[in-house]
Amino acid sequence: HEKAIAAGQANPPYCVRNVEQHAFGRREIEIAEQEMPGIMALRARAKDDKPLKDAKIVGCTHINAQTAVLIETLAALGATVRWAACNIYSTQNEVAAALAHAGFAIFAWRGESEEAFWWCIDQCCTPSNTWQPNMILDDGGDATHLMLKKHAAAFKQIKGIVEESVTGVHRLYQLSKAGKLCVPAMNVNDSVTKTKFDNLYSCRESIIDALKRSTDIMFGGKQAVVCGYGEVGKGCCQALKALGTVVYVTEIDPICALQAAMDGFRVVKLNEVIRQVDIVITATGNKGVVTREHMERMKNGCVVCNMGHSNTEIDVHALRTPDLLWERVRSQVDHIIWPNDKRIVLLAEGRLANLCCSSLPSFVVSVTAATQALALIELYNAPQHRYKADVYLLPKKMDEYVASLHLPTFDAHLTELTDEQAKYLGLNKVGPFKPNYYRY
Amino acid sequence: HEKAIAAGQANPPYCVRNVEQHAFGRREIEIAEQEMPGIMALRARAKDDKPLKDAKIVGCTHINAQTAVLIETLAALGATVRWAACNIYSTQNEVAAALAHAGFAIFAWRGESEEAFWWCIDQCCTPSNTWQPNMILDDGGDATHLMLKKHAAAFKQIKGIVEESVTGVHRLYQLSKAGKLCVPAMNVNDSVTKTKFDNLYSCRESIIDALKRSTDIMFGGKQAVVCGYGEVGKGCCQALKALGTVVYVTEIDPICALQAAMDGFRVVKLNEVIRQVDIVITATGNKGVVTREHMERMKNGCVVCNMGHSNTEIDVHALRTPDLLWERVRSQVDHIIWPNDKRIVLLAEGRLANLCCSSLPSFVVSVTAATQALALIELYNAPQHRYKADVYLLPKKMDEYVASLHLPTFDAHLTELTDEQAKYLGLNKVGPFKPNYYRY
Amino acid sequence: HEKAIAAGQANPPYCVRNVEQHAFGRREIEIAEQEMPGIMALRARAKDDKPLKDAKIVGCTHINAQTAVLIETLAALGATVRWAACNIYSTQNEVAAALAHAGFAIFAWRGESEEAFWWCIDQCCTPSNTWQPNMILDDGGDATHLMLKKHAAAFKQIKGIVEESVTGVHRLYQLSKAGKLCVPAMNVNDSVTKTKFDNLYSCRESIIDALKRSTDIMFGGKQAVVCGYGEVGKGCCQALKALGTVVYVTEIDPICALQAAMDGFRVVKLNEVIRQVDIVITATGNKGVVTREHMERMKNGCVVCNMGHSNTEIDVHALRTPDLLWERVRSQVDHIIWPNDKRIVLLAEGRLANLCCSSLPSFVVSVTAATQALALIELYNAPQHRYKADVYLLPKKMDEYVASLHLPTFDAHLTELTDEQAKYLGLNKVGPFKPNYYRY
Amino acid sequence: HEKAIAAGQANPPYCVRNVEQHAFGRREIEIAEQEMPGIMALRARAKDDKPLKDAKIVGCTHINAQTAVLIETLAALGATVRWAACNIYSTQNEVAAALAHAGFAIFAWRGESEEAFWWCIDQCCTPSNTWQPNMILDDGGDATHLMLKKHAAAFKQIKGIVEESVTGVHRLYQLSKAGKLCVPAMNVNDSVTKTKFDNLYSCRESIIDALKRSTDIMFGGKQAVVCGYGEVGKGCCQALKALGTVVYVTEIDPICALQAAMDGFRVVKLNEVIRQVDIVITATGNKGVVTREHMERMKNGCVVCNMGHSNTEIDVHALRTPDLLWERVRSQVDHIIWPNDKRIVLLAEGRLANLCCSSLPSFVVSVTAATQALALIELYNAPQHRYKADVYLLPKKMDEYVASLHLPTFDAHLTELTDEQAKYLGLNKVGPFKPNYYRY
Ligand SMILES: NC(=O)c1ccc[n+]([C@@H]2O[C@H](COP(=O)([O-])OP(=O)(O)OC[C@H]3O[C@@H](n4cnc5c(N)ncnc54)[C@H](O)[C@@H]3O)[C@@H](O)[C@H]2O)c1
Ligand SMILES: NC(=O)c1ccc[n+]([C@@H]2O[C@H](COP(=O)([O-])OP(=O)(O)OC[C@H]3O[C@@H](n4cnc5c(N)ncnc54)[C@H](O)[C@@H]3O)[C@@H](O)[C@H]2O)c1
Ligand SMILES: NC(=O)c1ccc[n+]([C@@H]2O[C@H](COP(=O)([O-])OP(=O)(O)OC[C@H]3O[C@@H](n4cnc5c(N)ncnc54)[C@H](O)[C@@H]3O)[C@@H](O)[C@H]2O)c1
Ligand SMILES: NC(=O)c1ccc[n+]([C@@H]2O[C@H](COP(=O)([O-])OP(=O)(O)OC[C@H]3O[C@@H](n4cnc5c(N)ncnc54)[C@H](O)[C@@H]3O)[C@@H](O)[C@H]2O)c1
Repeated sequence: HEKAIAAGQANPPYCVRNVEQHAFGRREIEIAEQEMPGIMALRARAKDDKPLKDAKIVGCTHINAQTAVLIETLAALGATVRWAACNIYSTQNEVAAALAHAGFAIFAWRGESEEAFWWCIDQCCTPSNTWQPNMILDDGGDATHLMLKKHAAAFKQIKGIVEESVTGVHRLYQLSKAGKLCVPAMNVNDSVTKTKFDNLYSCRESIIDALKRSTDIMFGGKQAVVCGYGEVGKGCCQALKALGTVVYVTEIDPICALQAAMDGFRVVKLNEVIRQVDIVITATGNKGVVTREHMERMKNGCVVCNMGHSNTEIDVHALRTPDLLWERVRSQVDHIIWPNDKRIVLLAEGRLANLCCSSLPSFVVSVTAATQALALIELYNAPQHRYKADVYLLPKKMDEYVASLHLPTFDAHLTELTDEQAKYLGLNKVGPFKPNYYRY
Repeated sequence: HEKAIAAGQANPPYCVRNVEQHAFGRREIEIAEQEMPGIMALRARAKDDKPLKDAKIVGCTHINAQTAVLIETLAALGATVRWAACNIYSTQNEVAAALAHAGFAIFAWRGESEEAFWWCIDQCCTPSNTWQPNMILDDGGDATHLMLKKHAAAFKQIKGIVEESVTGVHRLYQLSKAGKLCVPAMNVNDSVTKTKFDNLYSCRESIIDALKRSTDIMFGGKQAVVCGYGEVGKGCCQALKALGTVVYVTEIDPICALQAAMDGFRVVKLNEVIRQVDIVITATGNKGVVTREHMERMKNGCVVCNMGHSNTEIDVHALRTPDLLWERVRSQVDHIIWPNDKRIVLLAEGRLANLCCSSLPSFVVSVTAATQALALIELYNAPQHRYKADVYLLPKKMDEYVASLHLPTFDAHLTELTDEQAKYLGLNKVGPFKPNYYRY
Repeated sequence: HEKAIAAGQANPPYCVRNVEQHAFGRREIEIAEQEMPGIMALRARAKDDKPLKDAKIVGCTHINAQTAVLIETLAALGATVRWAACNIYSTQNEVAAALAHAGFAIFAWRGESEEAFWWCIDQCCTPSNTWQPNMILDDGGDATHLMLKKHAAAFKQIKGIVEESVTGVHRLYQLSKAGKLCVPAMNVNDSVTKTKFDNLYSCRESIIDALKRSTDIMFGGKQAVVCGYGEVGKGCCQALKALGTVVYVTEIDPICALQAAMDGFRVVKLNEVIRQVDIVITATGNKGVVTREHMERMKNGCVVCNMGHSNTEIDVHALRTPDLLWERVRSQVDHIIWPNDKRIVLLAEGRLANLCCSSLPSFVVSVTAATQALALIELYNAPQHRYKADVYLLPKKMDEYVASLHLPTFDAHLTELTDEQAKYLGLNKVGPFKPNYYRY
Repeated sequence: HEKAIAAGQANPPYCVRNVEQHAFGRREIEIAEQEMPGIMALRARAKDDKPLKDAKIVGCTHINAQTAVLIETLAALGATVRWAACNIYSTQNEVAAALAHAGFAIFAWRGESEEAFWWCIDQCCTPSNTWQPNMILDDGGDATHLMLKKHAAAFKQIKGIVEESVTGVHRLYQLSKAGKLCVPAMNVNDSVTKTKFDNLYSCRESIIDALKRSTDIMFGGKQAVVCGYGEVGKGCCQALKALGTVVYVTEIDPICALQAAMDGFRVVKLNEVIRQVDIVITATGNKGVVTREHMERMKNGCVVCNMGHSNTEIDVHALRTPDLLWERVRSQVDHIIWPNDKRIVLLAEGRLANLCCSSLPSFVVSVTAATQALALIELYNAPQHRYKADVYLLPKKMDEYVASLHLPTFDAHLTELTDEQAKYLGLNKVGPFKPNYYRY
């Protein structure tokens, strides 16, 4: 494929590692469908209405079985899509193959070069006779960025952007502040069903999974420090504590720090514990949280990994010095070896630990996917003046709708307000049930 | 005292059960001071500034050792106060005595009649030559209500209302919607440090304490249902589960219901489990959640209690029928006895279980008290046009300040952002650290 | 009563604080009966058989509502009893009154002097025309000791001793080793249903209850050290951790220490953490675990309490020096005040924290009581040569029977082995189900 | 290799899949060494003494990196070994290669045929000029069985058998009862450090790992039933509950059932919940616990797996009927498909779930390995009459020694008894610290 690009094939219908792997990818997609009841319910309910009829969606997200279920749902609701990866490592090649084989315009493979990465996105954004994109579904803001920079005219035709990630949302708010955002955007990263389910509940499980698969480490009796006690950090801490790990927390925000204390974690500065811990996890969304200096003081065998979006939380760059030896011991696991033979175990070269080592739990992705689909529907169908060129949160009622799509999975039975109770609380019987500032 | 009122003593300087109990109350206050480091720190830092100089505060809250620490802090910061109880059962008489003895205008005793309750509040609100109130600190909205209704002119002189409770806040928003709120009000009930600390962390402990003290019930192996999975419900569920109780949850809001499921609780309708549970807890802030019909089907010995603000969550009224026998077995514990000898065990006659059976954890009250004090300071000192006649949330920076006042208690060490990091995140190094919509 | 003793009334039928309180005590007993389903089931099943017909039991245990249920069960099964307290502080006077009023020979009141303590026991042990004891139910070994020392001849008539406590069992093994034990004894302290339920599950709840009632301390965010990670220590640690406390453990046994580590607790020497902890709990059954030296270094406000049997775990004696001021702040709570105003908060003067502050959970006591009753029945009815003058553990089958008596309370449904499975496992279908060395 | 066998090579020095893979296997062993501090400490301390000088050990266990560390330790202590696999699926081929390459007589590969399995064991047991085995280290009893049956004379020369598994121990007790055991055997399966660490703490982590790797299932909100609440079941239940799963338990033993209840699990018969659960786990050591009838009633997508030793807990055999379709979806994961398209997901064809999907936590294996090595040393060096031809438990002091070897890993600091305390407790200062019946 990289050759194919080099070969300059002008307008390939798709570009994946090996389309012949499609059967295996299709099986993965079918497995995913079983664990994504919400998005499947939405597909079933809305496929006659076709609320995305004539939508032309540029997608730029991780590409895996669960994304495939989203893509095929968008198609079932009437949309046409072109899709690229938002990360050069996270594509499941077989799934990309299955989608390509099913006729979708997919441009992605695991281990893309930087150049190929942008080329892929461009294949989705570039307008043509047959392709005038009118929606963007982004994870990280790269598609939005490229479109804005390179295809400014076409960008103006976009009816709405749906953005899933912290970084992407951050970039949108900056664009908006700078007055450069000329279309409405929806921040689904901060919808309740996203922050609580993807960040908290999902990471509670994936931190365990990522560490186990890569290092087979036993958690009982170990000591760990988690940097950042936001949603992701809370999930990591809860899981590790439950499996018998002694957990320390670092924080910059006094409120989160106090929460950590009340939840039974000692709040420390990284330096206070760095010599004694067996595991270091970053979950801040910040940069330079774990520095070379910290790593100098870690003990032999210390495992270091990152659960945040970007790969600068751990200053991996600073480990690329001649005195240190890098040894790849398994896929996604490097030993960094000091002259005195001390090793630290680095996962995924400081990139997102969980995406590299396993797929996300389908159920959480189902929640996220349903949220994304609903946000696309809302922006695509909203009357012209409901949304201006600004960044919006998902309306609470839609958040609640996403949640209710998923209750049957757990055989969870909702109570209904009586008329009298609704009146007493001043609520509509079908919601929304909480004020906007409610924190859950 | 009821007699004193009857005697019509026009302007008593205070009215408590027995001022002679002051020494014992003072000891309780001193114990409380030790567990309220935040408010004590604030007292120490601000007592020279006197930011509440000339403030004349009407207070209407539960009256206990912790409130006394708040009151004496407000005084130390320059304020004069007059104070009544917001609940006829919750006053600690010795504490009221200690405050009265120290010269504060306190009007409260445990077991006030309805009439006495309003008389007490009125003693605080009524303006006079020597008393022109300019601030209200309310818990439930009764002082605000009485002032608005009975002393409308004086009410206009108020610079700000600080309200702590769900109910009171609800009433403020209704006043505001109805255009009747003519002064700025601050909703501290929904500040992070209040909702997370008072509701979640405090109730996690007080539900256990309340049930133990009143019934000595063993939690291991029991089955309980918690109605409402908001902050209070979450705290109750977490504690009970940790002590080996099987917990079921009822909810009307699909998001909270999904959280309950992900946290490992079965979400049911009350009817599905009412026959089998040993404990029923309401924490909805709603009315008529547990009805006579439910109670008919409870098993012998079932314990029923309420953690919500009002006493209508459990329809206690419906139990006052001739076929049922009420037997008081301990203070705050009634057995309701059916003709067939079935007993249900009702705590606090359906009123707030934890306030009746024990005092609140001083630490949480410290957080709340510091929040209230800061809100009073903010409203009292704000430039004239910062706040209009509306309901406001506490500015995030103050929330963070309250939290930071309490970190030393836990020997918790905050990390500071580097300049580079602050820039990367687009934050001021001293906060606020999160967007307004952040949920913690 | 002390006066009564002084008055030298020769053979009082009972001696309690105030028999007029009997009605209140009876109510407590009735409440306890509801939470003691196992012993009540046993009473119902065996009351026609009267397996304790003509048994004459000397009892020496804590005297509370739950003991009363045991005593009345023994009577229902045919026994006559005389009963004294095994602890000078733990008697519930009203309960003793109710028993006395019902015709039982009870000798106990809260706050007995040392002298009165032994006088009471002697009232039960001394043989007479109408009283030739043939069984002992002991908790701590004091009745056994006194009988052996003072009534050696009568002691030889005893058919069996049932002993509940660590200390008492220890004394029995020593007697046995020294060849002085001339009757069979059953160590019910180490039966599974005792060690796991009374020590582990009960203390998991009572440590919380004891600390709350006495100090109203909030557990979230606090630091505690638990000395001893046996059954009691495990229960304390689990409960505190669940409520958000950071817990450290000290141990002398490497196996228990390793368990603590795997359960997520840092294993330290007391000195390493003594300056920083808010709570110190002893649960070792050892002496001199917390010394004056440790207490010198505790921080202001540190709460110190003991969950072990004896009052020498904390060296309270060493605090009785002229430089320290003792201030009683509540019943069972002392502040020990240093010259520099540092206070430590000592519960129950170093005696059993949970017995002083609340009653034991009836359910656990039900398990213990049923075990004691079955052990008495076994020893009383055993063919002459089954038991020699030695110390025995409860036969596993009886342990299992005790457990099965309690399953209905939890609506727990046992699976039955199929014939084929029983054969495969080499087990009898009705048990015992485990080898003797099984640890649960 | 199967061909090699067929080829009838008389006395191959080893037989593994592909000795060329040794470098990769060596790396795995080196990683394992880092997580097996106890056995490494033992190796370091005893390698000069050579306590196993001239020992000739037949080994028959799972063959993986951790076993390799044990084997190389035994060699360092002076022993010669010949080793086969105790399970046809569990061999890590690269590790076997590394051992063979290092000169060890290893006979094992993943996916042996039944015939090859016995051939391999026989290669270790058959005596010859150069090989007269005098010790057996067994896991399941197959080596013991074969030796006894086929090489009865040589069997008599054995100085001791060390057996690790439930099954093997069971077979030993049966041999002993039948009078056929003519050499001493040590049951290390029931040593504390084995039952608590391997069964409880290890399975707490491996159940999560096994399910995640094979199915990527999300645990939050799911319902699971665990059959058997022994050590393994307890571990599984604790982990699942901690990650938000609703867990039910089935039991035949009332004591374990009561423990489950007190730990917060509903105790049910399998039929009561089989329709609603998402996950079914067996951990009984029994047979026929999950039957075809149960599987008929499971819901679509239900995951079924076994944590017990044998593959008859789930009646997998009954699923091999023409009406059901088996589809292999991943390595060790089968979908069993009903005519109506219902699928159940079966792990490892009902064999040990955790061994098939991942390696055991090195740390727990370190505990087990150290225990095995110490048991071998004890039996090999014991004076002639200390052990008769019977089955023994590991002496408590050695159990404690194993534990103490591992404390430094966790930076755990043991407290030492003072002379006075030791005397008070009647203990030796260096242990053993508990009576034999102590349950931990
Ligand atoms: N791994 C995943 O599957 C996954 C899922 C969701 C989100 N994420 C990513 O994880 C990161 C965290 O997400 P979140 O939802 O928890 O965000 P968050 O904002 O809720 O939490 C981050 C926390 O880190 C703290 N922090 C910032 N700088 C710090 C520093 N230098 N030291 C210590 N603490 C610091 C902040 O105060 C904040 O409380 C983001 O980058 C997000 O994109 C990852
Ligand atoms: N006991 C205390 O110490 C204490 C402390 C703080 C707050 N409170 C009181 O507790 C109550 C709850 O507070 P909160 O912060 O948890 O509020 P919340 O709004 O976070 O939670 C209440 C929950 O109840 C649910 N609910 C409403 N009606 C219901 C019904 N009929 N059935 C089932 N669920 C229903 C709502 O959806 C909501 O999720 C309030 O009345 C508050 O004043 C008590
Ligand atoms: N409070 C209650 O309700 C209650 C209930 C049951 C038992 N107990 C009492 O609690 C005590 C403990 O009972 P248990 O069943 O846990 O006994 P246990 O033997 O299981 O545990 C005691 C632990 O303390 C350790 N230990 C001994 N000396 C030590 C020292 N100096 N420093 C640190 N650790 C030390 C021992 O190694 C042991 O593991 C006993 O005295 C018992 O009678 C109290
Ligand atoms: N997967 C692993 O890594 C691993 C590790 C150690 C042991 N094991 C194996 O796991 C099994 C269990 O080991 P354990 O230490 O927990 O044993 P255990 O004896 O402690 O527990 C087994 C429990 O199952 C119960 N039981 C028996 N038949 C039952 C039935 N029909 N229904 C319900 N419950 C039933 C028993 O009463 C017992 O309490 C053994 O086969 C053992 O070899 C596996």
